[in-house]
Formats: sequence, structure tokens, C-alpha cells
Amino acid sequence: MYKAAIKVILKPGVLDPQGKAVASGLASLGFSQVKSVRVGKYIEVLLDASSQQEAAAQVEEMAKRLLANPVIEHYELTVELVEGEELV
Amino acid sequence: MYKAAIKVILKPGVLDPQGKAVASGLASLGFSQVKSVRVGKYIEVLLDASSQQEAAAQVEEMAKRLLANPVIEHYELTVELVEGEELV
Repeated sequence: MYKAAIKVILKPGVLDPQGKAVASGLASLGFSQVKSVRVGKYIEVLLDASSQQEAAAQVEEMAKRLLANPVIEHYELTVELVEGEELV
Repeated sequence: MYKAAIKVILKPGVLDPQGKAVASGLASLGFSQVKSVRVGKYIEVLLDASSQQEAAAQVEEMAKRLLANPVIEHYELTVELVEGEELV
């Protein structure tokens, strides 16, 4: 069993209203040293595969087809071997 | 300038409808090897601080007060030194 972690982040230049809202929330809590905030997604996928390479290729395909919007987002992924079911 | 990356993930046992929706979307695209999916947030914060320790302490405080809901979520954070403005 492999666990993949995918970070999906808006590309530079794409407007991030959620990040702006978080930045203004932090400012109103007194965190005046904050310069900017970007909010993305963090997705964990537990999957069966015969090798780490195959798992990474599958997750790459998932990211392209469903998890990220390649027009406005980019993604980074890591895959590790895990024992048994970890995500609840 | 420091860049903090915060991963916010639902605690084990907390129902994740978004993860279930992604898992069923992947299954209907033919990714039958997927066992489970969890969807969390990935937040990048760019901030001024006098040291990496101070930056990490500030971001820890932000995570506790605004970025994560400690009742149902846990978070992991990393802080690194960056040059100039990186988040657009």
C-alpha cells in the first residue's frame, strides 16, 4: 500500500481571494508582520500499486485528470510505502 | 523574510465528505486501486521575523488561532528563509 501526498497550489499571478481573506483575518488578529498568504489543497491518497514508480505514475495521472486544474494550479507530489490502512 | 508552509489535515475519525467525493470521482475515472482519500488545506504564509524561531512561533500561533480548527484538525508546519517576495 502506498500513500501519496499531493499539494495543489495556485500558479503565481492567479488571484487567490481565499488567501487574501486569510491574510486580512490574520492582520485583524494582530499579526502585522504577514506579507501575503496563499491557500491551496493538500490531498492524501492511499492506493495499491506494485511499485513506488507505478504508484507515482498513477497519482500523477490523477492529479492531471481530477485533483488539480492545470490551467490555474500546479502540484507537487510525494509517494511513500505505508503498512495497512492509514487514512481513516 | 520567511515562508511558512502549513498543512492542515482532518484528524483520524473525522468524516471527510470532500475526500469521499474525490475518491468516488477517481473510481469513476477508472482508478480502481484507490483505497481512500483525505482532503486538507495547504497554506503558505510569507512573513517578516527576526529569526526562524520567531517566525515558527508566530506561525504556530496563527495556526492555533485561525488557520486550523484544533477540535477536528491537526497541522504540520515548516518555515524557511526566502529572499524577497515569493508569493504573488
